[in-house]
Amino acid sequence: MTSFEVKTIGTVESPLTDLGSAPRQADEGAPEAWLVFEPEMLEALQSLRPGDEILVLTWLDRARRDVLSVHPRGDTSRPREGVLSTRSPHRPNPIGLHRAEITAIDGRRVQVRSLEALDGTPIIDLKPVLSGEIGER
Amino acid sequence: MTSFEVKTIGTVESPLTDLGSAPRQADEGAPEAWLVFEPEMLEALQSLRPGDEILVLTWLDRARRDVLSVHPRGDTSRPREGVLSTRSPHRPNPIGLHRAEITAIDGRRVQVRSLEALDGTPIIDLKPVLSGEIGER
Repeated sequence: MTSFEVKTIGTVESPLTDLGSAPRQADEGAPEAWLVFEPEMLEALQSLRPGDEILVLTWLDRARRDVLSVHPRGDTSRPREGVLSTRSPHRPNPIGLHRAEITAIDGRRVQVRSLEALDGTPIIDLKPVLSGEIGER
Repeated sequence: MTSFEVKTIGTVESPLTDLGSAPRQADEGAPEAWLVFEPEMLEALQSLRPGDEILVLTWLDRARRDVLSVHPRGDTSRPREGVLSTRSPHRPNPIGLHRAEITAIDGRRVQVRSLEALDGTPIIDLKPVLSGEIGER
């Protein structure tokens, strides 16, 4: 397979440090977190504002890449599903996709409400939510 | 910066071959396309069904990675914005995020309605749309 080099553009700072205690989705009680970007990303961040709804893409560096099917939510009583129809962190490219709202910005530090990513997780991209594409929660 | 290796798990087959003629978003007249996965991905695909709403993550291999701010939609009359608050393909990690609906599945070939990605674009992940996270269009 062809491969490409994905760079860390920032890191998650969060009180979540343990995979076992991390909520599976942000609406299941995830805490506030800071997205701390590399200094060279300042120009790329310049138009973000508190209140913006964003998608944070992370590299789930503690996930397994050789897992192709899983029991949904780890429940072994449920039949296995192919990982590409689940949000399991274990997948060929362990990219996490998190919807979040910006609550504060301090230079290259961006605070978000309820992010279900572990402390130290590398950030690889950030995108605005497009109206119509992603609706109200 | 730390970096990671992202693998191509499939490729887009589309009548779109030219960057200039590609629509900027799927709702701006994008055509049907096939997602053609690598043979070793069959197990990971097994639970996908026609009608599923998915997010397709691609690697925009024709984009520039050294661009940190752009004029929105290429309109030079508009002020420059940091790329992380736009959907510009030009960004530090040129990851494309496309919402699509599966219309047919034939082995490791998955057909989707209206995908705004060029023919030959590498696919790096596929995720289900979560209810509540992404609303009706």
